[in-house]
Amino acid sequence: MLSKARIKWIKSLEVRKYRLQHHAFVAEGPKLVGELLPYYAPLYVVATREWLVENQHLLAAVGEVDEVSHEELKRASLLRTPQSVLAVMPIPASDLQLAALSSELVLALDGVQDPGNLGTILRIADWFGIRHVLCSSAKASASGATEGTADVYNPKCVQSCMGALARVEVHYCNLPEVLKEAQMPVYGTFLDGKDIYGEALSSNGIIVMGNEGNGISAEVERQVGRRLYVPNFPKGSLTTESLNVAVATGIVCAEFRRRS
Amino acid sequence: MLSKARIKWIKSLEVRKYRLQHHAFVAEGPKLVGELLPYYAPLYVVATREWLVENQHLLAAVGEVDEVSHEELKRASLLRTPQSVLAVMPIPASDLQLAALSSELVLALDGVQDPGNLGTILRIADWFGIRHVLCSSAKASASGATEGTADVYNPKCVQSCMGALARVEVHYCNLPEVLKEAQMPVYGTFLDGKDIYGEALSSNGIIVMGNEGNGISAEVERQVGRRLYVPNFPKGSLTTESLNVAVATGIVCAEFRRRS
Repeated sequence: MLSKARIKWIKSLEVRKYRLQHHAFVAEGPKLVGELLPYYAPLYVVATREWLVENQHLLAAVGEVDEVSHEELKRASLLRTPQSVLAVMPIPASDLQLAALSSELVLALDGVQDPGNLGTILRIADWFGIRHVLCSSAKASASGATEGTADVYNPKCVQSCMGALARVEVHYCNLPEVLKEAQMPVYGTFLDGKDIYGEALSSNGIIVMGNEGNGISAEVERQVGRRLYVPNFPKGSLTTESLNVAVATGIVCAEFRRRS
Repeated sequence: MLSKARIKWIKSLEVRKYRLQHHAFVAEGPKLVGELLPYYAPLYVVATREWLVENQHLLAAVGEVDEVSHEELKRASLLRTPQSVLAVMPIPASDLQLAALSSELVLALDGVQDPGNLGTILRIADWFGIRHVLCSSAKASASGATEGTADVYNPKCVQSCMGALARVEVHYCNLPEVLKEAQMPVYGTFLDGKDIYGEALSSNGIIVMGNEGNGISAEVERQVGRRLYVPNFPKGSLTTESLNVAVATGIVCAEFRRRS
């Protein structure tokens, strides 16, 4: 049985303000929940009897469990077609120790706005063994408020991450400040950067990717020491102005890993 | 002044059946319409006075033009926030002559379902100078009906193509048949393919990318002679099961072009 209070709580987690307030996010579907469960201690799981019976071994760390019919699950779900289980997970506390990551490859996102792009980028990070992704926080600055990177705990993003949230840590931070302190090379892609295939790439470093429309912000750009560019073909021809940010991230990460 | 019949016509073009019937699709916004206008002879343009005055030089080939207020444009637009111009473009007739493309790099999409992914892939094709994209048509087969690749003239896809439709030709076809006849190498990505970085890649050929969930269909797979794989990192580690199809397309195309 699903109480109205539960439904209200779950629905509230569609909104960032309430996710921050409750330190919680929603993940849905047997595949995603199954992948995340071993890494998170869910506050709450609501599922059909079939799912609960099959996954009993995963439920030890779960705060509370409700068994519901498929019809009842529909009332709680944030999806159009709910799939047998919904879990409320705690948002992990970020404990960014950049100094400890100085031999690693790290991704940094400066104002990536689309939750779908953000989810796709988390999958790229996971694929290429990048364990930490820094995201710019929303902030007011001298040059006006900036929106920051989308919230990875947005339900649309969680669903598109497809389990990458089990292995990739996401850190919202004051990105220019963090980059300023970083003791490792900082790379970024720019339309006037140098052809990535002609440049030396280190096996460690921070790769900065920018906003969908505006690229990397001026404040972050000042911290980027190595400016890269994915050449189009034929080089310098008249084509699409830019690649989608997730696609560019994939190409750049693939090239770093190809060489390491 | 915008007639009810016009509005009905435009709205009907959200639906594939009517796009096929009218051989027409909708593009919106000054940037996209401005990029497409030199390459298409629009059947119809509806725009604000400001846009029409600024773009008079582009209107010679336009069938009919309506000037409207911003408020009126909202009634016709398929977007949440219409932007000064909407154009109805003719769907180009596909005239696929694969023999004439035997020295080129061509992309083939086997059941890519998401219009956003399809739009992103068209931008990738454009970026990497790939002038022709083959798309699997929906069809009934012995093994059941397959859905085919999404319709590139779907408004969501048109908007996400961002002008790539000006330079990239899209051909819906019986993909297994076309590949069977092709006189050039056919590449595809598979989880059990060979590491792309260790393989010889020709400067011509057809690169096949598959469906978001199921990859390349069995029927198309039989026509793929060279099986590739984008390695994860560290190789063979436990990560995300697969990259997003547009990201994988970007990485593969970048690697082909890097070598040519």
